Amino acid sequence: MSPRLKSGERGGQAQVWWRRDGLQYDGDRLIFGGDEVERLAFSAGTPLYLYHSDRIGDNIRRLGAALDGHPLDYRLFYAMKSNRFMPLLSYLKAFGGCGVDVCSPGELMLARQTGFRESEISFTGTAVSDSDLDCLQRHPGVWVNCDSLSSIRRLGSRCPGREIGLRINPGLGIGYATNELLRYSGSKTTKFGIYRQQFESALELAASSDLVVKGLHFHTGCGYLDPQLPVFDEILAACSWFADRVSGLEHVNVGGGLGVPLTAEDAPLDLERWCELLAEHLGQRGLQIWIEPGEYIVKDAGLLVLQVNTVEEKESTTFVGVDGGFNVNMAPAFYRLPLEVVPCRLHGARASAAGGEVTIAGNINEALDILAENVHLPTVKEGDFLAFLNAGGYGASMSSDHCVRGYFLEYLL
Amino acid sequence: MSPRLKSGERGGQAQVWWRRDGLQYDGDRLIFGGDEVERLAFSAGTPLYLYHSDRIGDNIRRLGAALDGHPLDYRLFYAMKSNRFMPLLSYLKAFGGCGVDVCSPGELMLARQTGFRESEISFTGTAVSDSDLDCLQRHPGVWVNCDSLSSIRRLGSRCPGREIGLRINPGLGIGYATNELLRYSGSKTTKFGIYRQQFESALELAASSDLVVKGLHFHTGCGYLDPQLPVFDEILAACSWFADRVSGLEHVNVGGGLGVPLTAEDAPLDLERWCELLAEHLGQRGLQIWIEPGEYIVKDAGLLVLQVNTVEEKESTTFVGVDGGFNVNMAPAFYRLPLEVVPCRLHGARASAAGGEVTIAGNINEALDILAENVHLPTVKEGDFLAFLNAGGYGASMSSDHCVRGYFLEYLL
Repeated sequence: MSPRLKSGERGGQAQVWWRRDGLQYDGDRLIFGGDEVERLAFSAGTPLYLYHSDRIGDNIRRLGAALDGHPLDYRLFYAMKSNRFMPLLSYLKAFGGCGVDVCSPGELMLARQTGFRESEISFTGTAVSDSDLDCLQRHPGVWVNCDSLSSIRRLGSRCPGREIGLRINPGLGIGYATNELLRYSGSKTTKFGIYRQQFESALELAASSDLVVKGLHFHTGCGYLDPQLPVFDEILAACSWFADRVSGLEHVNVGGGLGVPLTAEDAPLDLERWCELLAEHLGQRGLQIWIEPGEYIVKDAGLLVLQVNTVEEKESTTFVGVDGGFNVNMAPAFYRLPLEVVPCRLHGARASAAGGEVTIAGNINEALDILAENVHLPTVKEGDFLAFLNAGGYGASMSSDHCVRGYFLEYLL
Repeated sequence: MSPRLKSGERGGQAQVWWRRDGLQYDGDRLIFGGDEVERLAFSAGTPLYLYHSDRIGDNIRRLGAALDGHPLDYRLFYAMKSNRFMPLLSYLKAFGGCGVDVCSPGELMLARQTGFRESEISFTGTAVSDSDLDCLQRHPGVWVNCDSLSSIRRLGSRCPGREIGLRINPGLGIGYATNELLRYSGSKTTKFGIYRQQFESALELAASSDLVVKGLHFHTGCGYLDPQLPVFDEILAACSWFADRVSGLEHVNVGGGLGVPLTAEDAPLDLERWCELLAEHLGQRGLQIWIEPGEYIVKDAGLLVLQVNTVEEKESTTFVGVDGGFNVNMAPAFYRLPLEVVPCRLHGARASAAGGEVTIAGNINEALDILAENVHLPTVKEGDFLAFLNAGGYGASMSSDHCVRGYFLEYLL
């Protein structure tokens, strides 16, 4: 990755691509949501996840404003799996404007615990067990998307008369441009959704199971930005085939997957163009559009703060050791997704002992526990705090206690 | 992967490569540690991890017997990070014959909680924080291996006079033959250990920090079997360079990494040859050998049992959906390590609806949540239980609650 902040430039506001209101340097201190990040880390200890509620609200508002600019009837469901920190869920409930999409009974209960009504909850699971379906039976007002004939059959036997959505698989996939790990669909058959070949059988089964299909659902990737929009276009077109075959269809759920820039090379998603595509393909049909953003709402609203405990050359590599590892955030090690690394305090040009290209290593005894490889950092010293940007989604929610290194706090600012 | 158990063969004992005392079919039922796996799964619910204490004991005994056959003075330290289930730790303590290696304060406390004395505990961490070192200061009898100059300096300031080990990096790596993800060292510089270039400085720093170097530690991979032994040989040879430079050296810790067969193509590690290599390189020096097996002790002593909830064709793939996912066991999805899948009950030839090649999909809404791809299974039906072999190590210990799908029980049989 290329340098973003030149070593020794105090502040260097113009140089950082990620700067925005609520996330910038004030002199030599990184400020997030009005707080000095270093001060928070010092008092709370690290690892520490920080989430900025205003940014979460801004993200929802921006998405809503774009959609409002088009003749579209829509509903938003926050994808809880991206971040289920309860104060964050409570904030979303209070902020209003979106329900939640859940994928397990546990998430469903979290939604109820934080005040979401059944009518504000959709359930989109995979490999759904009988015990999952029993839970859905006890929550008759929760919307269920079935992603297999098996789940249609088993839900029908429990909840005759219920209105449902069918999760379909249009056979096209999008995702992070360079990342094959995160494909939901595409040329290879995936576990998700009902394919064309099964679709008539699924409709017949739903009818014979006394379920009423009112929605279609598809989800074809994650982290998509402008370069992926042409594929999104194709997917929406492919969707028509399915929509044409459902009489009484009321909505189409286009899933989530809207991405945010992770590196200086990424541009923010063109929401206008994205809305136009929705309007072109679905607006004419008079269908309501359901959207399940997760990452788009929380990812850039969160930082992970870790403390540097080791700065050391090994052969020609400068390793910066920190007090958290891939168990606290899996994005770099397992998904090859970069977390932009930013010092919480800039030391200036003179203390440049370790300024330059570094590799940031976690504290787990596994070789792949590397948080960032060959990234440029301004001077960093043992005891410093580093902020890893875009850690608000799929960070804490996926964490484990591997090596009993799983402790951290989360703050909602 | 090739078929191991032919569809319809009831029992088929001769056909399964993994059969052993304590793990075999009795008629159509899978037996593990004297119990019917299906019955345990039915009563406890799934996901369920089962560990067989006798097998754990056998593994320790086998390793000890091989070492006893050579003129070697040795100590075993179980690598707790592979499995920290407390009853399993208690069993190891009661069984005797090995201490524990820990990599974090949390693991150290677990060792103390389960009765291990300080003198039976070694600590081998990476990116060790000041707070980690404070904990080690409070446990003066725990052996510490330092893997950086930074940790030597910071430990010395806390614990003058302490005897320590130095974790070295010989610059050679071994691991699962086809797996680049698990390399601890090798041509690429890794975060682990002290390289040749730093070694003299490390020794000087230890001396000036009033620490006494009595041990060397290296760890160069995991899961190694016979094909990797020539590299192990080279690594031991490379170690001499370091050993020659430490006066008063008392032991060399050769780490863990001893593997177990994961597929029908793997042969068990030739322990005789492995011991010969240790004796050749280290026996002459009069050094005690410390060994840190984790996987070798617990991996094949554990099963993960999941229940099938969905059997369904999608395009030309038969998907078998189960009630657990990569968050419960990360080996297949993230490490590309196979878990051999075995039905807990065989249905026989007539109920062959789904016999054949299948893909086993977990219940997490991510495309990579596949537990086994294109594997041959005898007939499997919704409601059946499947056992995933070799799940005793790095399974539960790495699990997460992603999607609030992280609940499971563990039984020590």
